Amino acid sequence: MANASLASLVYFLPLAFCMLSPGHILGAQEKTPLAVMPMPAGVVPGKGEFAINGNFGIALEGYKEPRLERARQRFLETLSRETGIPLWREASLNRPHFIVRTAGPSAAVQQMGEDESYHLEISTTDIQLTAANPIGVIRGLQTFLQLVRITPISFTVPAVVIDDRPRFPWRGLLIDSGHRFIPASAVKRNLDGMEAVKLNVFHWRFADNQGFHIESKQFPLLQERGSGGFYYSQDEVRDVIAYARDRGIRVVPEFDMPCHTASWFMGYPELAGGQDPSGSSAMDPTREETYRFLARFIKEMADLFPDSYFHTGGDECDAKEWVNNPRIQEFMRAHGIKDGAGLQALFTRRIENIVASRKKIMEGWDEVLQPETPKEIVIQSWRGQDSLAEAVRSGHPGVLSSGYYIDLNQSAAEHYMVDPVGAGAATLTSSEKARVLGGEATMWTDIVSDENMDNRIWPRTAAIAERLWSPQELQDIDSMYQRLAIVSQKLTYYGLRHRLITDEMLERMTGEPDPVPLKVLAAVVQPPRMYERQELRSYSDFTPLNHLDDAVPPESDTAREFNAIAKRIALGKASPRDWQQAQGWLTLWRDNDAKLQPLLVRSYLTQELAPLSRNLSQVAEIGLQALNDLHENRLVSTEARQRNIDFLKASEKPQAVLRLMVAPSVELLVQANRTQ
Amino acid sequence: MANASLASLVYFLPLAFCMLSPGHILGAQEKTPLAVMPMPAGVVPGKGEFAINGNFGIALEGYKEPRLERARQRFLETLSRETGIPLWREASLNRPHFIVRTAGPSAAVQQMGEDESYHLEISTTDIQLTAANPIGVIRGLQTFLQLVRITPISFTVPAVVIDDRPRFPWRGLLIDSGHRFIPASAVKRNLDGMEAVKLNVFHWRFADNQGFHIESKQFPLLQERGSGGFYYSQDEVRDVIAYARDRGIRVVPEFDMPCHTASWFMGYPELAGGQDPSGSSAMDPTREETYRFLARFIKEMADLFPDSYFHTGGDECDAKEWVNNPRIQEFMRAHGIKDGAGLQALFTRRIENIVASRKKIMEGWDEVLQPETPKEIVIQSWRGQDSLAEAVRSGHPGVLSSGYYIDLNQSAAEHYMVDPVGAGAATLTSSEKARVLGGEATMWTDIVSDENMDNRIWPRTAAIAERLWSPQELQDIDSMYQRLAIVSQKLTYYGLRHRLITDEMLERMTGEPDPVPLKVLAAVVQPPRMYERQELRSYSDFTPLNHLDDAVPPESDTAREFNAIAKRIALGKASPRDWQQAQGWLTLWRDNDAKLQPLLVRSYLTQELAPLSRNLSQVAEIGLQALNDLHENRLVSTEARQRNIDFLKASEKPQAVLRLMVAPSVELLVQANRTQ
Repeated sequence: MANASLASLVYFLPLAFCMLSPGHILGAQEKTPLAVMPMPAGVVPGKGEFAINGNFGIALEGYKEPRLERARQRFLETLSRETGIPLWREASLNRPHFIVRTAGPSAAVQQMGEDESYHLEISTTDIQLTAANPIGVIRGLQTFLQLVRITPISFTVPAVVIDDRPRFPWRGLLIDSGHRFIPASAVKRNLDGMEAVKLNVFHWRFADNQGFHIESKQFPLLQERGSGGFYYSQDEVRDVIAYARDRGIRVVPEFDMPCHTASWFMGYPELAGGQDPSGSSAMDPTREETYRFLARFIKEMADLFPDSYFHTGGDECDAKEWVNNPRIQEFMRAHGIKDGAGLQALFTRRIENIVASRKKIMEGWDEVLQPETPKEIVIQSWRGQDSLAEAVRSGHPGVLSSGYYIDLNQSAAEHYMVDPVGAGAATLTSSEKARVLGGEATMWTDIVSDENMDNRIWPRTAAIAERLWSPQELQDIDSMYQRLAIVSQKLTYYGLRHRLITDEMLERMTGEPDPVPLKVLAAVVQPPRMYERQELRSYSDFTPLNHLDDAVPPESDTAREFNAIAKRIALGKASPRDWQQAQGWLTLWRDNDAKLQPLLVRSYLTQELAPLSRNLSQVAEIGLQALNDLHENRLVSTEARQRNIDFLKASEKPQAVLRLMVAPSVELLVQANRTQ
Repeated sequence: MANASLASLVYFLPLAFCMLSPGHILGAQEKTPLAVMPMPAGVVPGKGEFAINGNFGIALEGYKEPRLERARQRFLETLSRETGIPLWREASLNRPHFIVRTAGPSAAVQQMGEDESYHLEISTTDIQLTAANPIGVIRGLQTFLQLVRITPISFTVPAVVIDDRPRFPWRGLLIDSGHRFIPASAVKRNLDGMEAVKLNVFHWRFADNQGFHIESKQFPLLQERGSGGFYYSQDEVRDVIAYARDRGIRVVPEFDMPCHTASWFMGYPELAGGQDPSGSSAMDPTREETYRFLARFIKEMADLFPDSYFHTGGDECDAKEWVNNPRIQEFMRAHGIKDGAGLQALFTRRIENIVASRKKIMEGWDEVLQPETPKEIVIQSWRGQDSLAEAVRSGHPGVLSSGYYIDLNQSAAEHYMVDPVGAGAATLTSSEKARVLGGEATMWTDIVSDENMDNRIWPRTAAIAERLWSPQELQDIDSMYQRLAIVSQKLTYYGLRHRLITDEMLERMTGEPDPVPLKVLAAVVQPPRMYERQELRSYSDFTPLNHLDDAVPPESDTAREFNAIAKRIALGKASPRDWQQAQGWLTLWRDNDAKLQPLLVRSYLTQELAPLSRNLSQVAEIGLQALNDLHENRLVSTEARQRNIDFLKASEKPQAVLRLMVAPSVELLVQANRTQ
């Protein structure tokens, strides 16, 4: 069974793994097969396991370069953190058991579509990793790190043969350093996270209306007047690019134009397309000076960023500024341009010429797609698979971001089920599908800061990474969540802060070193999905993001688990443990309000949570009653039941910009009660 | 009441602070006055509080230098993390409310005894910080950051006037990069912690038998053969020195000689004093070549480290190597030297000459003290106040480290009560006492790594910092612990990892994302004090430090709190809340074993904990029975009571290199039972 397809293996593995060590009590790491994300394309489980101890060593053979040596050292450091064994000192390299063979170099600048495949063979005595180039090696090392687990004997990796390669060549994460400045250190630790889940494109967005956050030597007033003092120096940018290259990650810069550009006009008002530059957010597409400026600027940035792709944004242009400007109206009349879209198309053609003259391939958001748009331009779709399909049918390569907007507080499962060639793109022909390059998770920072960014990106982005790397058939959501929990823990060894943020922010909100009752509430609430947050609180780019809706993860694990239990109870399929767990949780929630209220009044950041806490208590009270009635098989009055359902429905409405996630599950219990 | 002495204020403040805002519900931050460590020398509480919001600004007046500007920016960044308000962007600097006035510069290289005083005045509308030089400003900014707390209105600082200056000019932390290499990033975050608690000497030790961890350009084989590949480059060292200077911290390097020097001989065996260099750990004090080498080496290092002091170690010389070497024996006979101490004294004189020729003041451990030792040499005492007093009486300046060995798992209270001019040094005359420069906490890394180092250093070192900064009369241990808990939380905003380490290591030990029953056990155990750990497990410098005794903090807060409750119950002074808390804890501990055992067997790192977990359960069972008997005022049989006491005594013996810290408190309960 060499290279078995994954779909069958996922279900085959649990049994195989249980057989590895008879009598071995299963821990969380083993409830699920190969706790790896993304799941490799081909897996053949072996027998036994390889033990990691202080004599562990790893040697490079074949093609060598400093990047490989650094990857090896980084691997040892991560493995040391994973195990607590100081392997980075390499006590014994007399006979390394882990041999890495690299056939040859990769491109001097990492190219889209380069070979990322690797072959990893783990026996009880030896490990072999082979790859065509350093990128494949980097991928294989990460798989190994995820396989490490603790057993009664030692840290081990299971014997296995893995043949792996990605499904899509473009697997990205956008970090928006335009709305809010994100320090380079935060960028770097997220590049470590990207490496861990085999993402290979860092889409770095530098400017928006709120700020211009990169140094231009050609036009220094951009950062001097537009950044509030916070911008990346070009040396810092080069450092990040090198850091990304070490991890097999390309860096595609985005300079969004002609709109979202108010911050450019702080230093260069002559670029503005509105009559009053200080109120303007769109560039003037009608003046030759604009293009002369952009030609110089794009040359500078194209030289700074070695990648072949160059993103010029192009999204969400509001034509009002243009059509309200008599000079631009005049131009449009003179050139027979009938609307803003036409004007933007003209702008796009000019920019595409400039970008092409720098030997770069232009990328843009959906809006740059016009009948006359040159076919090599890559369309990044924020509008959905229909829009992506339209771009691809008309001959463009496309990248999907719709469905991967990790700032919108959707569940990992929702993101996971979005496929770049699914939904509206499913009917593409296979040659059209080949133009779907992949997808990108987007970390917009309108209402996320560098402080809480990690808990928006991780662990959910690992689910998106799996969608983009692993076979399309892989769709088991339970398996995904089981593995996601383990990967989430492993990401801690890369310095990611997603698991620390909530507690730290809760402590700050209360001034208490361990505000347990607030933690209980925090575990069952979520910020509302999609764009509802902005409707519930007004946000500017100076708004402190230090409330509970900023602190909690986008997805409540507790609420999801409680929901699964409530479903089983309602269906009569619950175990005694389920009943016990439901009872325990509901009691905890019912009794929490009395402990939490005295805490809430002490801090201006928690006072708004009082009604939410009361609601949790009342919802839990209803839940306990329903649970009890179900257990005793008691009949309840239709009227009382309806009253409870009404209350539960009402309590689903956001309060303090948070949704109480357990109310729908309690409703399941109430609905399951038999009426008189 | 300008400049009231502290002793009276500590007891005066609680009342005064409660009066600030009538009807204001007290949070943890306000159970104690001025939750600041070290407590300032003079405090006059005011009325009301200053609110911190998005318009907060801080301006520098008077003398200016880039270091002050960086201190200001760092202050804004820490305050942003403390509040979650993006103050670092300085939305409004139209009218800064915080004015910093600096009279003039400090010395180009920070000197021992430089003025560190500051005056801080906070009213409801304005803040003024004045100081003679940038060091005082740096101290005052840290006081302000510690005063920040959350209230129902906003983040605030209380109105107050503070006049502050240190008691001792030498307040240090030693980090031992000799036994184990500590990455510069870990050093830096601990420098941030030092700044927070106003420590001003970073004693950086670079070599021991285990390794030589700094780059020498004169003798590159030192690091090439002696470091295992891990050493600080000179550029890195310069960077750390600059980082420390920014924080008002001097860097005193230590190169321990003539003993603990095996790692030097890897590259330069000709320095060895033993017949076989590969088994030798002491330098040869009889050969001129040794001094020629050390003269060049010390010149190089004296040039690298700008501080006036230069530490040459000198501790724990074992003369055996020397007296077993015929050549050295011959030398001793020829020069009338009768023992190893005499030979070391000769070595010390030679080294002192070399150090003095580089215009540095030499510092050494107790052992360098000999009748003929030049009086300017600073004696650092690891042997105790008697030894310190002896040095000071014979005319030397002295620094106390005995009692501040934070690697030995003593309590914060124990360290806190050690005074540099207490115990054997209490009888010094006042002019002798003036030669006691201060003290130094010592983070030896024999069995501590960079991973768990933060939880050994913090928060206990804040108690030592207070002893060295604040008035001697300050001795209230309860107040110290209350403030320590708050400071410990604040240190998180400086990036220190002490509060994260235990959970991270527990997760790694179990492979579970939230191993609750292991956390319950971990909260009530401690590694044994002093040198008992080494007797219970054998440690080399490659021993993985990933067991529970590495993971838990040196001091169990839960056990301390339980002990206080048990005392109150035994004395008949307990509140209903005390009874309830004791009952709750004992029940949790009794029931924990059943949950923990199935977890323990799964991991080789936790299996050894099985007996300890069983013990906790049995101790708690006994405690519950005793509590119940006390509550019901029941008589117990003398025999049963004695059996329980015997069991409790036995359970205090370390298991798995851990002590069960609640057993003595349960014994208090049992002892309080009346017998038939």
